[in-house]
Amino acid sequence: MRTQVAIIGAGPAGLLLGQLLHRQGIETVILERRSADYVLGRIRAGVLERGTVELMARAGCDQRLRAEGLPHSGVNLCFGGQRHRIDLAGLTGGEQVTVYGQTEVTRDLMEARAAAGAPTVYEAGDVSLHDFDGPKPVVRYVKDGVAQSLHCDFIAGCDGFHGVSRQSVPERALEIFERAYPFGWLGLLADVPPVDDELIYVYHEDGFALCSMRSMTRSRYYLQCPADEKVGNWSDQRFWDALRSRLDPEAAERLTTGPALEKSVAPLRSFVAEPLRFGSLFLAGDAAHIVPPTGAKGLNLAAGDVRYLSEALIEFYGESSTAGLDAYSTKALARIWKAERFSWWMTSMLHHFPEQGGFGRKIQLAELEYLVSSRAASASLAENYVGLPY
Amino acid sequence: MRTQVAIIGAGPAGLLLGQLLHRQGIETVILERRSADYVLGRIRAGVLERGTVELMARAGCDQRLRAEGLPHSGVNLCFGGQRHRIDLAGLTGGEQVTVYGQTEVTRDLMEARAAAGAPTVYEAGDVSLHDFDGPKPVVRYVKDGVAQSLHCDFIAGCDGFHGVSRQSVPERALEIFERAYPFGWLGLLADVPPVDDELIYVYHEDGFALCSMRSMTRSRYYLQCPADEKVGNWSDQRFWDALRSRLDPEAAERLTTGPALEKSVAPLRSFVAEPLRFGSLFLAGDAAHIVPPTGAKGLNLAAGDVRYLSEALIEFYGESSTAGLDAYSTKALARIWKAERFSWWMTSMLHHFPEQGGFGRKIQLAELEYLVSSRAASASLAENYVGLPY
Repeated sequence: MRTQVAIIGAGPAGLLLGQLLHRQGIETVILERRSADYVLGRIRAGVLERGTVELMARAGCDQRLRAEGLPHSGVNLCFGGQRHRIDLAGLTGGEQVTVYGQTEVTRDLMEARAAAGAPTVYEAGDVSLHDFDGPKPVVRYVKDGVAQSLHCDFIAGCDGFHGVSRQSVPERALEIFERAYPFGWLGLLADVPPVDDELIYVYHEDGFALCSMRSMTRSRYYLQCPADEKVGNWSDQRFWDALRSRLDPEAAERLTTGPALEKSVAPLRSFVAEPLRFGSLFLAGDAAHIVPPTGAKGLNLAAGDVRYLSEALIEFYGESSTAGLDAYSTKALARIWKAERFSWWMTSMLHHFPEQGGFGRKIQLAELEYLVSSRAASASLAENYVGLPY
Repeated sequence: MRTQVAIIGAGPAGLLLGQLLHRQGIETVILERRSADYVLGRIRAGVLERGTVELMARAGCDQRLRAEGLPHSGVNLCFGGQRHRIDLAGLTGGEQVTVYGQTEVTRDLMEARAAAGAPTVYEAGDVSLHDFDGPKPVVRYVKDGVAQSLHCDFIAGCDGFHGVSRQSVPERALEIFERAYPFGWLGLLADVPPVDDELIYVYHEDGFALCSMRSMTRSRYYLQCPADEKVGNWSDQRFWDALRSRLDPEAAERLTTGPALEKSVAPLRSFVAEPLRFGSLFLAGDAAHIVPPTGAKGLNLAAGDVRYLSEALIEFYGESSTAGLDAYSTKALARIWKAERFSWWMTSMLHHFPEQGGFGRKIQLAELEYLVSSRAASASLAENYVGLPY
């Protein structure tokens, strides 16, 4: 089999890239280790920057997003038992974010790809990348017990943190930057109305909490927990009680509880692998970088990579220019590090760190107090939250 | 002997408080462990916020400051070999800072106090504070071998971090918050013109550096060094070479060197003791809190305390109201923690930390890049640097 761009991974990054290329007449094959249902079963964040919404429009996949997505023009910080609203729109000249689950983004992209008849090989086993140091890379894999070869011009590694793409790069060619945080997030999904129309980021002496939602009838809540916490230790009741105790009195009063559809613990990690290009292999999204979820940058950052990479590939096939491909790594990394900084900062300010001591907690509170009292500081948070300009 | 307010310490905080009270007809006696010459020999920062300049005016001590102080409407960040100017005035609606050595502030206040005939007891030994849990506190000390008692209404502890005032408070009444940084500043004073009209804060892989000045003919430079560094390890030549290598090419070219008038190593520390009031004893300035010098907040923070405390005492004697005295600790601490946060942040962003690793350095660079590229972030730095409103 032969294609122009082999895309490894059918998550939102790979699917979005495929769709953007397809609309420009560039052939792609997506290889995905899992089944489509498995991919759709992954519960992830759902706060989209304007740039990400625009990219979905460019991909022709924004109809449902625009109909069902919830525009949020503000976000709330809660500390000392009081809620403070950051007026995202007012502080950024009208920008907002759109709440729309990553699962829905993936579903829309999958359906568009199926409608376009572009090939995705699900349950592709033993995927391996070859000869990407030259112009004729090959991807080998096994489908239904039969070994296959996919010849291509380029490989786009969109297969996430644990995927094969980054692992195919010789160790000496990679520079790794990372920080593991000494805690995780315990998430609970429930079909109950969210406690507020907007997100609430909670700083509390028992630890961070986040009130989020997928829709006006489906809520997603998080509690800071030890990194090695077992979900089994948390009955629904225990979760709701702990969450309520971290909220301001009005929110605590209004919290609607219900049976958990899903509960899981996710570790928090910052990670960047540099560079993003190795000959004809390009990494995008979680394959190259991870942010802790505080600030909701993961999906948006992947979309940013895909924007740069799709533009570079379109330029290559349309104008025979490698300028965009040559600039991809540097351009994408500049944006990635700003989002890494923002996510690290939000995480550092809002979580309880075992080693921080009394001084650290006082500094966090001073930072929060300053943040909500200063227009400049609020505007800085806001411009990062809605997404820095491309 | 009897007075209304016994002031412990003849540094700028104690002298300024004395002068502000004297002008309102409130009697003070200042007790200072050292000689006047010793106090004047201490080399300290010299970047004054507008609020501090105003307070010097209120004390009637701003003539020389206004004539000789250097107004700075900007400050520079240097990293990656490039200098970036933060336009303090443009970002804050016209605010600026005034460069005027702390030694000069002290000298002006000393002279004003002498001219007013207000008593300062220098070389007061064995100072001890008594009965400040009630309305009739007493300060005992030894002068020229003779034990003395100073009866008063209030004691103002302005005697710095190592002074007796905070140490006189029972340990259980104090809550201490602190962080020691794993490095110090090696400072050099020389009678050479400064490398630039404005300050330059330098982030460099060899460590932080600061180009500062006392006047247009006297420069003060600093290099980050190990906390336990010996001054003897640093010849003038070694200092100048190390400084030059951390500057951008243009500044390196322009650096004028000369023999050191003084060289010293200062540790960096964040420290806050709460509360600031214990009956009739009030702590102000370094006696209660220390900031690392990055951001030049130490003297300004002491002036802030003195502003609140002088207003409270004037209100007490003028209107028999204890409202200001009762509010002093809470009001001053709110401002102190904002400056503690700013100083900690500037320190964290600009210094090399042994434990930070590659991720930490990348985050610092991302923060600096973001800072100089975002008006909101620059404005946040600027409003803190010129001094948050009272």
